[in-house]
Amino acid sequence: MRVGVVGLGHMGSGMAASLLKAGHMVTVYNRTRSKADALVAMGAAAADNPADACRGEAVITMLASDDAVRGVVEGREGILAGLPRNGIHISAGTISTALSAELTERHAKASQRFIAAPVFGRPEVAAHGQLFIVAAGAKDAVAAAQPLFDAMGRKTIVVSETPKAANLVKLSGNFMIATVIESLGEAMTLVEKGGVSRQQYLEILTSSLFDAPVYKTYGNLVANRKFQPAGFAAPLGQKDIRLTLAASEELEVPLPLANLLRDRFLALRALGGDDLDWSAISELSAIDAGQPSS
Amino acid sequence: MRVGVVGLGHMGSGMAASLLKAGHMVTVYNRTRSKADALVAMGAAAADNPADACRGEAVITMLASDDAVRGVVEGREGILAGLPRNGIHISAGTISTALSAELTERHAKASQRFIAAPVFGRPEVAAHGQLFIVAAGAKDAVAAAQPLFDAMGRKTIVVSETPKAANLVKLSGNFMIATVIESLGEAMTLVEKGGVSRQQYLEILTSSLFDAPVYKTYGNLVANRKFQPAGFAAPLGQKDIRLTLAASEELEVPLPLANLLRDRFLALRALGGDDLDWSAISELSAIDAGQPSS
Amino acid sequence: MRVGVVGLGHMGSGMAASLLKAGHMVTVYNRTRSKADALVAMGAAAADNPADACRGEAVITMLASDDAVRGVVEGREGILAGLPRNGIHISAGTISTALSAELTERHAKASQRFIAAPVFGRPEVAAHGQLFIVAAGAKDAVAAAQPLFDAMGRKTIVVSETPKAANLVKLSGNFMIATVIESLGEAMTLVEKGGVSRQQYLEILTSSLFDAPVYKTYGNLVANRKFQPAGFAAPLGQKDIRLTLAASEELEVPLPLANLLRDRFLALRALGGDDLDWSAISELSAIDAGQPSS
Amino acid sequence: MRVGVVGLGHMGSGMAASLLKAGHMVTVYNRTRSKADALVAMGAAAADNPADACRGEAVITMLASDDAVRGVVEGREGILAGLPRNGIHISAGTISTALSAELTERHAKASQRFIAAPVFGRPEVAAHGQLFIVAAGAKDAVAAAQPLFDAMGRKTIVVSETPKAANLVKLSGNFMIATVIESLGEAMTLVEKGGVSRQQYLEILTSSLFDAPVYKTYGNLVANRKFQPAGFAAPLGQKDIRLTLAASEELEVPLPLANLLRDRFLALRALGGDDLDWSAISELSAIDAGQPSS
Repeated sequence: MRVGVVGLGHMGSGMAASLLKAGHMVTVYNRTRSKADALVAMGAAAADNPADACRGEAVITMLASDDAVRGVVEGREGILAGLPRNGIHISAGTISTALSAELTERHAKASQRFIAAPVFGRPEVAAHGQLFIVAAGAKDAVAAAQPLFDAMGRKTIVVSETPKAANLVKLSGNFMIATVIESLGEAMTLVEKGGVSRQQYLEILTSSLFDAPVYKTYGNLVANRKFQPAGFAAPLGQKDIRLTLAASEELEVPLPLANLLRDRFLALRALGGDDLDWSAISELSAIDAGQPSS
Repeated sequence: MRVGVVGLGHMGSGMAASLLKAGHMVTVYNRTRSKADALVAMGAAAADNPADACRGEAVITMLASDDAVRGVVEGREGILAGLPRNGIHISAGTISTALSAELTERHAKASQRFIAAPVFGRPEVAAHGQLFIVAAGAKDAVAAAQPLFDAMGRKTIVVSETPKAANLVKLSGNFMIATVIESLGEAMTLVEKGGVSRQQYLEILTSSLFDAPVYKTYGNLVANRKFQPAGFAAPLGQKDIRLTLAASEELEVPLPLANLLRDRFLALRALGGDDLDWSAISELSAIDAGQPSS
Repeated sequence: MRVGVVGLGHMGSGMAASLLKAGHMVTVYNRTRSKADALVAMGAAAADNPADACRGEAVITMLASDDAVRGVVEGREGILAGLPRNGIHISAGTISTALSAELTERHAKASQRFIAAPVFGRPEVAAHGQLFIVAAGAKDAVAAAQPLFDAMGRKTIVVSETPKAANLVKLSGNFMIATVIESLGEAMTLVEKGGVSRQQYLEILTSSLFDAPVYKTYGNLVANRKFQPAGFAAPLGQKDIRLTLAASEELEVPLPLANLLRDRFLALRALGGDDLDWSAISELSAIDAGQPSS
Repeated sequence: MRVGVVGLGHMGSGMAASLLKAGHMVTVYNRTRSKADALVAMGAAAADNPADACRGEAVITMLASDDAVRGVVEGREGILAGLPRNGIHISAGTISTALSAELTERHAKASQRFIAAPVFGRPEVAAHGQLFIVAAGAKDAVAAAQPLFDAMGRKTIVVSETPKAANLVKLSGNFMIATVIESLGEAMTLVEKGGVSRQQYLEILTSSLFDAPVYKTYGNLVANRKFQPAGFAAPLGQKDIRLTLAASEELEVPLPLANLLRDRFLALRALGGDDLDWSAISELSAIDAGQPSS
């Protein structure tokens, strides 16, 4: 297929590479153009603006915020202007359900199609075409995009015909991760103050019921209490909790855990933690217990 | 070794069976004597009272509450009276850190030794000698008890020389499980109200970062919203959160997640959920969102 | 002074009446024009649109939401277009700090002045010129508006030269009221389940340390458990908590009480309480305790 | 009447003085005997032990904790031993509902009567016989004690025939005060970070809906951020929240506000605040927002 990829961070670049390897014709665009170089060397074409990346049947956006998505969708050189009739915009980033609903409507008015297809997995997973993709959108659109999903992911689950449902799943997934971080922060502070080492406690957890990547990855961060460099920075984690809360408000679902996480991120940022990994919210349990990191 | 086992519920019976299979000489005691029959058939001796089960080098208690432990420890026919000088009382149940500290002191005064060795694993795991054991106690006592641990468990981790530290680890482990239940309840209510099926959501979680027994086991319960028969009844879950909160108060460690869980259990019981599995606290998220189970 | 009043609900009408009584020349505007009739009979002029109400030195807006304020500020017939150079827009309603900051900037660009002056008091208090006014804005603007404040209020406190600070005070005041409602809901559920009547408990509170209007007014509502007709409807209370949370996020101030209130309003609305008074959030404590209203 | 008073702190001494002024024959007891001197000078008799203070028709205990009450009730020289048949023990302190239930039963077994009659008011109020008394107990006992209540208080409200109901009211009253402190801490941190002075904010509150002693007294403490000397020390406040939570657990009433307060007191104590007034929990909001006291 002919497909554009807009947004060439670590994730977007990995996804574009997977598409190229699978034989698709890929046009890439990034605001900072140099990020396209490696992909051009692999066979991609470089676009001058988002609209230029929309000459094929589909365009994939992989951007970090609602504002960034708006920036490539709107305007004369934007995706809405550039995408052909029946063209498909696949949003792969973590955006709000509200923006997803808005794009669904605006693309429909422009006789285009919109799919939300947020991904689970890290950059290296993306580069190997092994992402886990959660998609939602009109059946025909999802079917048409399937070859692209197959190139980028090891598995695609379609959860709804309404795109924003997929964004909700992605947001709630990040919310689940943040609850794991918080629970590790509280439990490790408790046992450490009771005389048990954090590392030993983590070993116990992951040797039993908690033998999962999320506990191993974040458990090590929380046990070692080193939050730099940030794999996923605190402001990004905060944004996802904010979007989760916004979705819960629209759906009228109380979420006490998300509220607690909201406050944790506010406290972390108030204490100067903008550059830390989001798992640093676990330190707040220790601070409240009079056990700040040395 | 010669060892007694007091408390022959599913777990205690499994542990006694493992000890017998490993060649230890086991005397068993249970208030309802018939529970000893199967073990006697396997070669165990049956004691008339807890003191009678203390004729060997060690006695293991596997009971459901602090009160039950006090019931077999105190009095003329209790463990304190029956255990010989240097005898070891190994408490394998989930008891409070306060009782653990008290028993440590009382056994010491009686020239006996006390180890806390709570176990992780279900009855069938216990019966196969594959428990995960977290032990704490004086080094010589733990070393002396090692053959018993080897018979009952696949792995023993010693976390401290102070017994109550092991109880703290066990309590915090159950607290961690309860936080998983709560997070599943909130997230599944959210995505379901947003149009995504609970089962599909669980599949997404356990296909990615959350690929762990705790998410599979409890995820299925929360997704299916069937909480009977109870694998672990709500009042027992409530008790463990209560003991976690008591330990956190003694250690001066705020635990907002445990507070939330406290209230969840109170609401569950106020709504008549005493006979339900503890994972039924997940229904409270749904009720708060106007989505009670049909 | 010549002054416009835009928004003639119970509060706005009362304020306009007080201005007329004090001898000011008042032009009034309301989307539903008939609401102006009584004031015209008292000597006010009726404007055809918001801009028409801006012919004097100042215009006061008293509207229920950010959207409503935007609706009268923007466009050809809006306040920004109609207000003369140096004219003062006094926003008396409960709006977001973000909109307040935005209006401060937009009026400044239009060489106009903006004051936030939210009011405390009910409609009958407004009609008697006895409001409590919390104002913030540039010193010269506040000084120029003082005769208007004197006509409408018994007291004006100037809290800052930055308008949005006054909005923050108003929002946090409503947040404080909501915390009182929540605390009454929890405490009355507790004592009632313990055998003490809600009315008697309220009498005890208001006979001692809690002898204040906020406890008397809301205490009666919570004790009697009758929430219709709504004095201040649940969606409006929810809005104010939402705006309080938004302000707290901008200022990086965790607010656990506001989070709890957020969830209470979501649950109330999910259970169908849109038409109830905001004090109905107190029923959620009773529901959680298995004591729903008969 | 002939009456004993056991426990001569500031409150107990004031109450004994009021009883003397009203003409009652008062025998007093305090562990540190010198505290009885001033009352003896006013006409009281001094007892050598609690039982000695029980020679009349009633004895009043005014002590700071459950343990202290047990200390004067039990033993050969205790109240249970000393009080005559039909004698009345009036517990005026803030004790747990569990101890109240236990004393009700033990006194009944001894053919004695028990009333819980906790008081609201400060020492100077007690000394002037102007306390607010909340009583619960059997009708005949309360009627018999009425002359004593009349001497000590300006008003007595009888809430139940079950003594512990009065203790519940007292505990929940202190819980209500603590929620006021918490709400002031959050709101003042918010407005202060938004540029408004704490003192000015308090003036606004107490000039309007919040014109009550509880907001004036605690508002000044929270605004001035000076928590020494302690009027009511943090550990005492913590104890009352603990007892409130214990009562709520027995009654199966979730109390999210009490949970938050629990954690606040734990954090305050973990940070070294044992000697501070309980209103110092308000500082935790400021610390979480990166605004610690200078």
